[in-house]
Amino acid sequence: MIRKFETELEDLKDKILKMGGFVEAAIEASTQALIQRNPEGFKNVHAYEREINRAHVEIDECCLKLLALQAPLAADLRLVLAIVKINSDLERMGDQSVNISYSGEHYLSKVPVKTEVNLPQIATQVRQMVTEALDAFVKGDVHAAKQVLEKDDAIDQHKADVFEKMKAEMQTHPELIGSCLDMILITRNLERLADHATNIAEDVIFVYTGRDVRHGFGGDSGT
Amino acid sequence: MIRKFETELEDLKDKILKMGGFVEAAIEASTQALIQRNPEGFKNVHAYEREINRAHVEIDECCLKLLALQAPLAADLRLVLAIVKINSDLERMGDQSVNISYSGEHYLSKVPVKTEVNLPQIATQVRQMVTEALDAFVKGDVHAAKQVLEKDDAIDQHKADVFEKMKAEMQTHPELIGSCLDMILITRNLERLADHATNIAEDVIFVYTGRDVRHGFGGDSGT
Repeated sequence: MIRKFETELEDLKDKILKMGGFVEAAIEASTQALIQRNPEGFKNVHAYEREINRAHVEIDECCLKLLALQAPLAADLRLVLAIVKINSDLERMGDQSVNISYSGEHYLSKVPVKTEVNLPQIATQVRQMVTEALDAFVKGDVHAAKQVLEKDDAIDQHKADVFEKMKAEMQTHPELIGSCLDMILITRNLERLADHATNIAEDVIFVYTGRDVRHGFGGDSGT
Repeated sequence: MIRKFETELEDLKDKILKMGGFVEAAIEASTQALIQRNPEGFKNVHAYEREINRAHVEIDECCLKLLALQAPLAADLRLVLAIVKINSDLERMGDQSVNISYSGEHYLSKVPVKTEVNLPQIATQVRQMVTEALDAFVKGDVHAAKQVLEKDDAIDQHKADVFEKMKAEMQTHPELIGSCLDMILITRNLERLADHATNIAEDVIFVYTGRDVRHGFGGDSGT
């Protein structure tokens, strides 16, 4: 019975990692299509999103079955609950990638903004946070998860910087208002992707330490 | 043992409803402060958010304990897992209310936009969706939950309308760009609140029918 539970849990972790791979691919496809000004590339994002949504439903079913049939305890129970939450985060990351592809398609059809925005750098940092959060999950690496949390402020700062730059450009180049708005929305979507990576990292810390680091309360699970 | 489980489950439902009450209060406080142009009102939002964050950690702990000690099955298990998810949604609704208060404070410090935006109507519709989703949860009312899902499109449409109106106003009144951007962000926050209410309604449908209505797959839980 124990061996069966461990096998099922490993299977569930594999499913989450495969879903995470689709999420990484969706982020990569949407940001690269935008950066390389290749609107064709956005089409792949929708294919990845379908896989993400399929995995979302399947993983929730697996978690329910595992809880019902195996009734795990302590760290194992925390792991299954974390998977339920990580599953939700990954699904919403698929939505954000699709949002980037919509704003990106709109953006590429118009005159680009004049102010320099280092989208490749922001996109790379966000993708790294996502990859590192998923790696921390699969390795149970609390230290790596904490490092992900520390990177979130830099992305918030990028978002705020781009917002101010675009506001200024809209004043001086009213003809570029549409493009500036797209750029604002795209960097907000990237920032939300980073937020979801942060949520995943917080879940990893909770699974492997039993400590809830959200909201600075630092409570113990007691189980 | 069964009686104890039912008592604990009722206790957990009460906690979610109390948290939901703080979320409703946070939305009410942030939108009313904005509509009545009373910046003092935004202060209450932060007090409500602290209560929401406290409840978020506490409810997750209760769910873990309930799963560990009682190992519920079928509909009871789905209910506890739904509470885990609803808890996350409510916490993020607190964040959205805080975001409205930040943009709202900024907005009230400047010249208002000229184009008419029916914020009271949008805010009322969003608050109704939240209240109806929580009512559907407490009553286990699948029909009411489905009605919440049907209301989401209207909010998406409001968001899109405001976006187009503000884009046009920024072109004709570049001096109001800052205010127009605030209005865009505020309606996006309201739309995200409606999305979270939709998530809650989907969870209610899943708990009481065993059917996963997300992504149009309509899968059964099998437990």
